[in-house]
Amino acid sequence: MVTILNHRNKMIEHYMKGMLLAHPHLAKLPDQPIIYNRNQNPDLIPILSGGGSGHEPAHIGFVGDGMLTAAVYGDLFTPPSWEQILAALRFLNKGRGVFVIIKNFEADIREFSKAIHQARNEGIAVKYIVSHDDISVEPKKNFQMRHRGLAGTILLHKILGQAALLGADLDELEQVAFGLATEIATIGFATKSATIPNAALPLFELPENDISFGIGIHGEEGYRTVPFSSSEQLAVEITNKLQMKFHWQEKDAFILLVNNLGTTTELEQGIFLNDLGQLLDLEGLDIAYIKNGKYMTSLDMTGISVTLARLKDPNWLDYLKAPTNAFAW
Amino acid sequence: MVTILNHRNKMIEHYMKGMLLAHPHLAKLPDQPIIYNRNQNPDLIPILSGGGSGHEPAHIGFVGDGMLTAAVYGDLFTPPSWEQILAALRFLNKGRGVFVIIKNFEADIREFSKAIHQARNEGIAVKYIVSHDDISVEPKKNFQMRHRGLAGTILLHKILGQAALLGADLDELEQVAFGLATEIATIGFATKSATIPNAALPLFELPENDISFGIGIHGEEGYRTVPFSSSEQLAVEITNKLQMKFHWQEKDAFILLVNNLGTTTELEQGIFLNDLGQLLDLEGLDIAYIKNGKYMTSLDMTGISVTLARLKDPNWLDYLKAPTNAFAW
Repeated sequence: MVTILNHRNKMIEHYMKGMLLAHPHLAKLPDQPIIYNRNQNPDLIPILSGGGSGHEPAHIGFVGDGMLTAAVYGDLFTPPSWEQILAALRFLNKGRGVFVIIKNFEADIREFSKAIHQARNEGIAVKYIVSHDDISVEPKKNFQMRHRGLAGTILLHKILGQAALLGADLDELEQVAFGLATEIATIGFATKSATIPNAALPLFELPENDISFGIGIHGEEGYRTVPFSSSEQLAVEITNKLQMKFHWQEKDAFILLVNNLGTTTELEQGIFLNDLGQLLDLEGLDIAYIKNGKYMTSLDMTGISVTLARLKDPNWLDYLKAPTNAFAW
Repeated sequence: MVTILNHRNKMIEHYMKGMLLAHPHLAKLPDQPIIYNRNQNPDLIPILSGGGSGHEPAHIGFVGDGMLTAAVYGDLFTPPSWEQILAALRFLNKGRGVFVIIKNFEADIREFSKAIHQARNEGIAVKYIVSHDDISVEPKKNFQMRHRGLAGTILLHKILGQAALLGADLDELEQVAFGLATEIATIGFATKSATIPNAALPLFELPENDISFGIGIHGEEGYRTVPFSSSEQLAVEITNKLQMKFHWQEKDAFILLVNNLGTTTELEQGIFLNDLGQLLDLEGLDIAYIKNGKYMTSLDMTGISVTLARLKDPNWLDYLKAPTNAFAW
């Protein structure tokens, strides 16, 4: 398989240069893996997110007015170091503090915690939310929920970003974040594993006509692998898992985000969305907002993740609908 | 390989239903393969485009305010019939006529011509442009340019759509279209052929580590197949072919559109864009506007096409930058 690149170890750097070229509102901090919104109003609370690369367009695709102020990125599937995160916190703080959105992965938590601890020691006010929307389970660990941070994180970016744009302070952002993060659930499936560029082997084994439920975005295996039967059957399994999480009632209102995990075709994603939409409609749910696209990938994995968020606060809908120049929203 | 679908012959119908669900400004004409913008102002000249399916998000992703008024679609890689196109023309005409954007493929021209002829006989004013941006050549026919309609067509959608929104009449739209269509050139490459869903074979043969230049969007073979060396080398070949078309001078202003032909990763496309951008910069060109994304695909083909358009009229830049609710712009 060809991977379009020049040097494996310059891959992320070259990608970022391409994105800076295409999106003039983005700028890079010299000598740091930090991309920021050059039009950010300094009176607003800045919002930082980030993590390992390989999930493009996350997170730099969400840097813009009314979303993230900056994204700090590591190498492929590796979070940025705490020193790099600290550099971002120092750069972003204009005296009123920084709000941080962290995906729940062990290495991310370790680096972000250390950076936040250090920043606070330096007098920078930092509050944060850990995104943990994954409701897939671990078959080897008594079917415990994995609670990793997945594509549902993007809803935090948009809703918190718009709240910040409207003038929310650090405490208010924390309140919105707490209220929202626990209402988000994501579950997905893959029909093909990702492959690390220039490496020969896929990250997990998946027979030609099988699909795997509950895969992670770093090549973590799913909780169940079965032969593919139909798009509708995929939607049934996903809907069942979401129902178990939410115990919804008829007329409950939700936000729906359907995410391309990498190389699913538009055609397939649209077909799956139709099946999913029909099932949620049969359940009597009020799907108040639908977002369908490519938001958080795992390199060239083929598959789709589904995020539902219970619409507890009607403001969230306005925040989602507000315009942004973040290129991947 | 798994294709996420239910029934092969309901594939397009199910995809369209999914898109209608996700995008409330879109509606479908009953019993016709026609999707339209339900908010279209009846005082404006409507713009129609369309063609075979399998190129998603084209064309329904470009239906919206300031872009297409409607898209008429056929089955996979097959244009709609002239009767269906005629139904679209009758539906769209509010007395001031309809402007049509046609991609230059034999079957498309045949069906659209017949429909336009018939509509005119019925007293509907119709003007049209044939998009022919492909500058790849036919090795078996003395290296003649193929002039097929490719991703550059999307620039016609946006610029003509915005001109219509600002009140241009049918003659004015024709003038803009003539001026623009001859200034657009597209050339691309594939690293993997598309495969028809549920068919076993790829549409063309491409050895594992080779790339093919000048491929079409229906699985037409390219003009040259060579082993992959680097993203930069791809950008060199593409830039050379574009230079041969435009004979540009330093400081000439261009619009650049980089298009994912299906399943290229964001990471790879960004890397390639960076290489391309550097070469165009070395040429001294003024790239006044860059659009990078997925606009016109060939199912699951992996590859990228590059479109340049000479910026002959500064209004085009304003038209490109104007907001639209078309979901794929």
